[in-house]
Amino acid sequence: MSIMFLKRSELEEVLEMPAVIRGVKSVYKEKAEGRVVAWPLVEHHFPEQEAVCDIRSGGVFGSVGIHGAKLLNNFPHNAEAGLPVFTGVLMAFDSTTGIPVGCMDASYITSMRTGAAAAVGAGALARKDSRTLLIVGAGRQAIYLLGATLLEMPQLTRVIVVDPLDAAGAKRFAKDIRGRLQRELAIDTDVSFEAMEDLREASGQADVILTITRSTAPLIMKDWLRPGTHLSCIGADMIGKEEIDPEIFTVARAFADDAKQCCTVGEMEIPAKMGLISPESICGEIGQVLAGQIPGRTSEEDITVFDATGLAALDLVTAKMAIALAEEKGAGTIMDL
Amino acid sequence: MSIMFLKRSELEEVLEMPAVIRGVKSVYKEKAEGRVVAWPLVEHHFPEQEAVCDIRSGGVFGSVGIHGAKLLNNFPHNAEAGLPVFTGVLMAFDSTTGIPVGCMDASYITSMRTGAAAAVGAGALARKDSRTLLIVGAGRQAIYLLGATLLEMPQLTRVIVVDPLDAAGAKRFAKDIRGRLQRELAIDTDVSFEAMEDLREASGQADVILTITRSTAPLIMKDWLRPGTHLSCIGADMIGKEEIDPEIFTVARAFADDAKQCCTVGEMEIPAKMGLISPESICGEIGQVLAGQIPGRTSEEDITVFDATGLAALDLVTAKMAIALAEEKGAGTIMDL
Repeated sequence: MSIMFLKRSELEEVLEMPAVIRGVKSVYKEKAEGRVVAWPLVEHHFPEQEAVCDIRSGGVFGSVGIHGAKLLNNFPHNAEAGLPVFTGVLMAFDSTTGIPVGCMDASYITSMRTGAAAAVGAGALARKDSRTLLIVGAGRQAIYLLGATLLEMPQLTRVIVVDPLDAAGAKRFAKDIRGRLQRELAIDTDVSFEAMEDLREASGQADVILTITRSTAPLIMKDWLRPGTHLSCIGADMIGKEEIDPEIFTVARAFADDAKQCCTVGEMEIPAKMGLISPESICGEIGQVLAGQIPGRTSEEDITVFDATGLAALDLVTAKMAIALAEEKGAGTIMDL
Repeated sequence: MSIMFLKRSELEEVLEMPAVIRGVKSVYKEKAEGRVVAWPLVEHHFPEQEAVCDIRSGGVFGSVGIHGAKLLNNFPHNAEAGLPVFTGVLMAFDSTTGIPVGCMDASYITSMRTGAAAAVGAGALARKDSRTLLIVGAGRQAIYLLGATLLEMPQLTRVIVVDPLDAAGAKRFAKDIRGRLQRELAIDTDVSFEAMEDLREASGQADVILTITRSTAPLIMKDWLRPGTHLSCIGADMIGKEEIDPEIFTVARAFADDAKQCCTVGEMEIPAKMGLISPESICGEIGQVLAGQIPGRTSEEDITVFDATGLAALDLVTAKMAIALAEEKGAGTIMDL
């Protein structure tokens, strides 16, 4: 019995964003058909280290046939010791036999599929004539959201970057991002990039907003938004995290990656606790929109929200793709188990 | 960043039962001190394959400092295709930094630490003058329970083997086990081994009973037991599994590895659902006995029960031990992640 072992640099070599986007779409559609399971997620806080680890597990059955688990650690104080802050391992199994198929770094796959998820939500729900994208948060994950969304929405012409916690970081990000997209993700773009400090002003100019911060309080208020705006809310993936005004959910057409999980740990958590929404009252899941089961945007005036909390199925399908590509390209190490 | 990768044959090479028993005892004691966490376990059934997978996760904090997860698959029909039935992978992380430390086969560690758990429960709770051990179930796991218990209870002189589902298997097991213990676990013993078919008769002769079957209905009835008998119930580790008469819990001093987990998925599940016991009404956890916090057996007449459902912490501490031994012996492969 042997498995494919892939380190981060090998995953960077074999995975390309367009394929990851296709994989994410396929998982969302499989979910709408009832072939995706998301098992209860584990979240553990290490108070001494101000750190957190989370475990996501689940699978995609049917013709895909993969299940497994991923454990991610986020230890911010590692940076001071010169250690990696964000680490993780993913293990994948063939769900027709249970036989292990792969074991790999989970940090890069998480970044790629999370970026793709934000983009798929925006592509499905934003106005077709969207031009201005606002990305809120210029941290580690921002490049993946941005790169994927530029691929998925080629009509975009302008990107505004705001980081409410790090204005200088946003400036640096806006300045460097064109070159980084080319080098890190092989994405060429001629959109304009600019950093702004006033999030209210930026929100009022945006057609599409991606949020990817660690915020635990609303950053974007309902009254700031123009009719027709789309928001992909990605930062809130654990209890207590929140990026947008709960009141937005009283007017928006809201979609989840997983309705129950979003109302427990996602951007929908606080609005659900306030009684504004529930897994049953939201419009539905993004996969239902992609599969044509339910409408997404219904008018040019709709405010739409996509809340993604992350599904192990996304990681696992990306992992399966990485294994196939590694076999093809002779990358990775085949390990006897 | 590099991790230790260990395949099953390397784990067989480096792990020895006496050390695994010490590790299991240390975890139970750490649990009594509040330094062990068991995160919600995942159990998924694959109806088409009549298979099951489970994920256990958690950690041991304090000076041990390890956390992680293990995914095990049990696909019985694999045997017909010549594929391994029981497979799994474990991943372990340093809980002071989150840095991955190891990734390995989980099947052997599970077998070893489960055997050790049964033995530790028996050693702590059985009468000191116990002579006759009954093992119920002669399947894949039986040798580990038996080997560990013979080490932990050197006063034993006689072993009875009963397999209610496979009398021929029990005979074969009793005939071969002395040699197998020597070859597979490096354990020499001069106890006598015999197979029996009548479980009632065997139960009435036993001082210590270990149960390790897939049963989903009681095999051993309360009235069959002599006063002073100890039972370590190991087979029931998922919803619906059951090996002993719920009525035994009305008279026994009962101990859990994890009180809540045992009353949810263990031998205590059905009695708890019947209202006979609850996590609060049982005597306590085995770690509290080992740590001297609560009494175990209080008289020569007590019937004692130890219910073990398995803690990821046991796997992780065994994994940590395996990594250290592999480093020492130059076994395993150090993989860049």
